[in-house]
Amino acid sequence: MRAGFILHILGALIFFLGSMMIFPFLFALYFGEGDARFLITSSLITISSGLTLFFGFKNTGEEEISHKEGFLIVGLGWICAGAFGTLPYIFSGTFNSFVDAYFEAMSGFTTTGATVLLSIEDIPHGILFWRSLTHWLGGMGIILLSIAILPLLGVGGMQLYKAEVPGPVYDKIKPRVAEIAKTLWGVYVLLTAIEVLLLLLGGMNLFDSLCHAFGTMATGGFSTKETSIGHFNSIYFDTVITVFMLIAGTNFALHYQFLQGNFKSFWKNSEFRFFISLTFFAMLLVTINLKINYFETLAQSFRYASFQVASIITTTGYTTADFGKWPCFSQIMLLLLMFIGGSAGSTGGGMKCLRILLILKHGYRELYRHIHPRAILPVKLEGQLVPPEVMGSILGFFLLYILIFIAATLVMGILGMDLISAFSSVAASLGNIGPGLGTVGPVYNYEHIPFAGKWLLIFCMLLGRLEIYTIIILLIPEFWKK
Amino acid sequence: MRAGFILHILGALIFFLGSMMIFPFLFALYFGEGDARFLITSSLITISSGLTLFFGFKNTGEEEISHKEGFLIVGLGWICAGAFGTLPYIFSGTFNSFVDAYFEAMSGFTTTGATVLLSIEDIPHGILFWRSLTHWLGGMGIILLSIAILPLLGVGGMQLYKAEVPGPVYDKIKPRVAEIAKTLWGVYVLLTAIEVLLLLLGGMNLFDSLCHAFGTMATGGFSTKETSIGHFNSIYFDTVITVFMLIAGTNFALHYQFLQGNFKSFWKNSEFRFFISLTFFAMLLVTINLKINYFETLAQSFRYASFQVASIITTTGYTTADFGKWPCFSQIMLLLLMFIGGSAGSTGGGMKCLRILLILKHGYRELYRHIHPRAILPVKLEGQLVPPEVMGSILGFFLLYILIFIAATLVMGILGMDLISAFSSVAASLGNIGPGLGTVGPVYNYEHIPFAGKWLLIFCMLLGRLEIYTIIILLIPEFWKK
Repeated sequence: MRAGFILHILGALIFFLGSMMIFPFLFALYFGEGDARFLITSSLITISSGLTLFFGFKNTGEEEISHKEGFLIVGLGWICAGAFGTLPYIFSGTFNSFVDAYFEAMSGFTTTGATVLLSIEDIPHGILFWRSLTHWLGGMGIILLSIAILPLLGVGGMQLYKAEVPGPVYDKIKPRVAEIAKTLWGVYVLLTAIEVLLLLLGGMNLFDSLCHAFGTMATGGFSTKETSIGHFNSIYFDTVITVFMLIAGTNFALHYQFLQGNFKSFWKNSEFRFFISLTFFAMLLVTINLKINYFETLAQSFRYASFQVASIITTTGYTTADFGKWPCFSQIMLLLLMFIGGSAGSTGGGMKCLRILLILKHGYRELYRHIHPRAILPVKLEGQLVPPEVMGSILGFFLLYILIFIAATLVMGILGMDLISAFSSVAASLGNIGPGLGTVGPVYNYEHIPFAGKWLLIFCMLLGRLEIYTIIILLIPEFWKK
Repeated sequence: MRAGFILHILGALIFFLGSMMIFPFLFALYFGEGDARFLITSSLITISSGLTLFFGFKNTGEEEISHKEGFLIVGLGWICAGAFGTLPYIFSGTFNSFVDAYFEAMSGFTTTGATVLLSIEDIPHGILFWRSLTHWLGGMGIILLSIAILPLLGVGGMQLYKAEVPGPVYDKIKPRVAEIAKTLWGVYVLLTAIEVLLLLLGGMNLFDSLCHAFGTMATGGFSTKETSIGHFNSIYFDTVITVFMLIAGTNFALHYQFLQGNFKSFWKNSEFRFFISLTFFAMLLVTINLKINYFETLAQSFRYASFQVASIITTTGYTTADFGKWPCFSQIMLLLLMFIGGSAGSTGGGMKCLRILLILKHGYRELYRHIHPRAILPVKLEGQLVPPEVMGSILGFFLLYILIFIAATLVMGILGMDLISAFSSVAASLGNIGPGLGTVGPVYNYEHIPFAGKWLLIFCMLLGRLEIYTIIILLIPEFWKK
């Protein structure tokens, strides 16, 4: 392991982060609420830390990045981003404690959107812009991670995506990463710009449009309003954001292919078909449930059901209604969607539709094998055989996800949370959703959770965001052996 | 598929069931509460139905029983037992509806112990004895099923137990089944007798001793008292029953080996070590949690924690305390144990410790493989390689278990149950435990659940008891194709 090389790369990342803090600084200058100096200080500290690391350690990157180095860069990358991301919060005194600042920063970079911020609308615009920007930058990181890096590290079946990456595939990581970054970030920026335009068109101001577009495209969920998207109470905004949440929950490689003129790319992709069918099916069921037990009209039921279903399955976490008061069936349905999540290669979290689809195929195959014990039945995806070791990795991912969910829920129980709040806060953090049920429901936040609980949920956000394996293996002594 | 042959075998089973009804009839005569005539009528109808089927259809069993016939006999065996088991309830008017009678009978034969019986202590002794006897007979069926039949059908990894069966292994099922039945039922009867003696010794009357020994050895949970074992409020009874619940949750093949003089049999068995360590660890954690947040003394905390933990992990379901009022950590812990369950080859339900152990090994192996991508790391059990297809079957079992849990919880939600009651009633039925949390907690029962919900839970009990696959594949059209 080349420690110097890893620090060199982290330096570049931190420098980039610091330079991004210029944008909230500009907003702070414009609104003149006194937060400009906090943001510029944060930016300068971050930039200089980044440069120190970048130039203080040598680029010995001529050799290929090893497996272990890859894991370490990814894990440390997010942890450092979270750490430097707290600076604006700390300098401006937005939070009373470091854990709260780190919670908010990590919730941003992991595109979770769970918040510990009270009275959001009293916070200066510069700080709020930084908060939303952490989502958007985290989303950029995820696209890169899930389409370019994880397939190479063979994490939880992501190697299936090796073939789907647009652009030429090189043997070495560096040129490949650069290629993917350029093409997919282009798509990401373009889609964000379109959403901003559509929100502006509906009468939202530029600041709110940018923040909400960042929150949508990153499937994050931070809003500039106390009551999230419900604040605007507009069918137009609900519709635009629903559509863009679904776009953000779709594999970005498919968007790229679509923009290249391959208009059938979506429907030819099994995961997309699964994701979109499941979404519409869940919308339908929740609409029916709400019509019978909660709302007066079908239109109302459909409006709130479709927004909340899209928000939860894509793991965005924006809300237009307090689903904590909805009938039990709708709540269980949303809870279930928290585990499923968006598509692989999207900014969405959760277990990912691809894995759920393959897991279901495995389950069906096992049933079939009990009827025909001698039949050889490989799991296939789009006519291609899924290698047994990939299937094993996916099943392992599923197990680890559930084990971590159970263990963390137990700890939240020890910390005195009630059953529903305990498991939904863990499900919402691990799946990078944001709001849960009970005392972490849509109209509440995570502020009241004890310190130890906040650290645990931060850890869950990180685990969920980096596909479990990436973080867990850093904790195994075996990893650190020569 | 030889329909006649299947009916012939079912006839033998039904005849056996009818003849067993003689015992509650004798108790009914002794207590003279007017239920004797209902029991003798039920017995005669069941016996004659059994004989009609047995002699009406030919034994074409010279050929080996096919895979499909095996599944069908097992599935129909339990369904028929449940149906004829309702007769005493129906004739005596114990319940107002057929679904309640069938729920109670199936809860008995599947050794679940969830009850829809109100004011248990007003029910005549003969009927109560039949109720407890259904547990004991169900337990007998399970021992046979899990050690002799499922390994041959290759259900969910049970083929690992092929080698552990005591006695000579023949090529054909019939002599093997007979051999296993004789040896293991001997152990079952012996252990039941010892428990009865110990309960009598503590001052419990013969009737209650028998009923509670049946409920313990079958890991059932039906009691003759409204407040279950808590009624006796005796440390002696708590201890005896705790020990026998743990015995009943252990593979009966190990008991047999122990009785044969192989005193190290238990500790040499990985699953037993896992089961017993997990049990004691859970007891310890719950004791600590109760001492801090609930009870005054450590002794009290340990007494109630150890009983409830043993009862839930073995899936018995007897209670000495209302754990629905316990702190959240203890509740989550108990909920978790509901999924784990007893050992394979015991009368306990749940996913079984063997599977959980192998699933954990698979999870660890996947983590390890991300560190050493080129390492070949088979999952081993006691030095023996676990074949990949067995591992696949176990993982498939785990997935199906969770999928059914989710789907059934959703349906219970549609039926209007609250979240905790919905998922805990399903977990408790699928794991064959009995009491859950919320409105199906220890001090409540299942009577208030709507009809459709009761049918669904009956189905869950059956699914859980017959290791999921056995019932599910009967529902796949593929099964019925030539």
